Amino acid sequence: MKNIKIIIAYDGTGYLGWQRLGGKQQKQSIQGMLETVIGEIVQYPVRLTGSGRTDAGVHAKGQVANFSVPSAFLTEGKNIEERLHFFRMECNKQLPEDIRILDATYVSNDFHSRYDAKQKTYCYYIDTRKEAPCVFSRKYALWVPEKLDVGKMKQAVEILLGTHDFLGFSSKSRAGIQKKQKDTVRTLYSVEILPWKHGIYFSFTADGFLYNMVRILTGTLLEVGTGKCGIQQVRQALEKKDRQQAGATVSSVGLFLEQVDYK
Amino acid sequence: MKNIKIIIAYDGTGYLGWQRLGGKQQKQSIQGMLETVIGEIVQYPVRLTGSGRTDAGVHAKGQVANFSVPSAFLTEGKNIEERLHFFRMECNKQLPEDIRILDATYVSNDFHSRYDAKQKTYCYYIDTRKEAPCVFSRKYALWVPEKLDVGKMKQAVEILLGTHDFLGFSSKSRAGIQKKQKDTVRTLYSVEILPWKHGIYFSFTADGFLYNMVRILTGTLLEVGTGKCGIQQVRQALEKKDRQQAGATVSSVGLFLEQVDYK
Repeated sequence: MKNIKIIIAYDGTGYLGWQRLGGKQQKQSIQGMLETVIGEIVQYPVRLTGSGRTDAGVHAKGQVANFSVPSAFLTEGKNIEERLHFFRMECNKQLPEDIRILDATYVSNDFHSRYDAKQKTYCYYIDTRKEAPCVFSRKYALWVPEKLDVGKMKQAVEILLGTHDFLGFSSKSRAGIQKKQKDTVRTLYSVEILPWKHGIYFSFTADGFLYNMVRILTGTLLEVGTGKCGIQQVRQALEKKDRQQAGATVSSVGLFLEQVDYK
Repeated sequence: MKNIKIIIAYDGTGYLGWQRLGGKQQKQSIQGMLETVIGEIVQYPVRLTGSGRTDAGVHAKGQVANFSVPSAFLTEGKNIEERLHFFRMECNKQLPEDIRILDATYVSNDFHSRYDAKQKTYCYYIDTRKEAPCVFSRKYALWVPEKLDVGKMKQAVEILLGTHDFLGFSSKSRAGIQKKQKDTVRTLYSVEILPWKHGIYFSFTADGFLYNMVRILTGTLLEVGTGKCGIQQVRQALEKKDRQQAGATVSSVGLFLEQVDYK
């Protein structure tokens, strides 16, 4: 068997999330759709290992996954490079236009998309246009037609950066997930607040994120930016691990898995 | 009666074009959808005059239209400014999320969106990414994964700029339209070829455009850029008014009515 690593971009709008679903819902998840199409091309029932799950509606510019195929599939062409190029082109022909494989490489058998991930970057886009949200970004940004105090938001970022127990910035609603995640300590390496043509976007890089953590961090920063939430409250949410003190979980609409970095 | 001018943005993907359609198709055109929603808000059967038609699938960032309402509608509030703000907000609440009114102003009764337009600007986006088109721009850009010779395209632009009979760069397929357009002379003020994050875009400004003219100009420039069409052929298409010499009519997917300027 050979191990193949792929980098995937998808518009999550029409899907129930990354995670494979059974039966008739097979093609309603990104993973299920990819497994169906790749399986037909390689003529083998592939199972993808993703770098992590993305929720319903969340987009990705650089999701990473790997899967095993019989060695023969890779040695059928002139060389492996050419074979992988053919594989990627075939996938992109057969996949719906909201999912694209950007890269496919042959990796060592011990490569694991989730366990080997060193850090991940998620971005969240905010459309701050007063009159109306941009119609062309309506599925890719959250509309917050308010003045945001970037200075205050940067103060909140200073509190959040570093290694902390982020339990107060996570949701417990998804049964089973949080149970397994006994360790809720994560290291937030950077949070950037950057200009975007219709407003701003946040870029979060960490060694990992808890369930809904990016959406709650974004909700909290927005509440700080609009003055609904004080800096002290952010500190309390973190120190007391108190979900009630942190901001709301914002919609998935503006959220992108930007990139996954490996050792 | 009072005359109101509105500036509209729309994602044309889901519509059959600007032009009002009868019966059950009323809400499948941008104009029909706007007339339905505005009519309900002002409680009067409004008829919009657009700056021009856009075809099925074409987008707009700054379409302009005007319509008459009974004077009483504007004088019901504290002042006209406030009333127009209320009107715009109500429209945007009731319109589907792919159409937004960006501005509404009270103009003199003799203002006419089409006759008074001095010039229009259309843009056309080209995604030149080799691997795969960007999933997030798939409805807003044409995928041309080829190397484009910008220098050659600029040479073609030099030929096209100015006042010419653009009959060779128009379609005759839409019965009735071309008949009325006996005068096929237009002045192309500027054509810019600009960088865009996934490739390039063309920006065309003219005193007016013939049916399909922007799409044929784009198709021609792309064929020049990829080497399929020579500069001499562009000159012939223009001089001999020969549609066969000009490039293909590209899809509506990457086309935006950017802005309409008035005297």
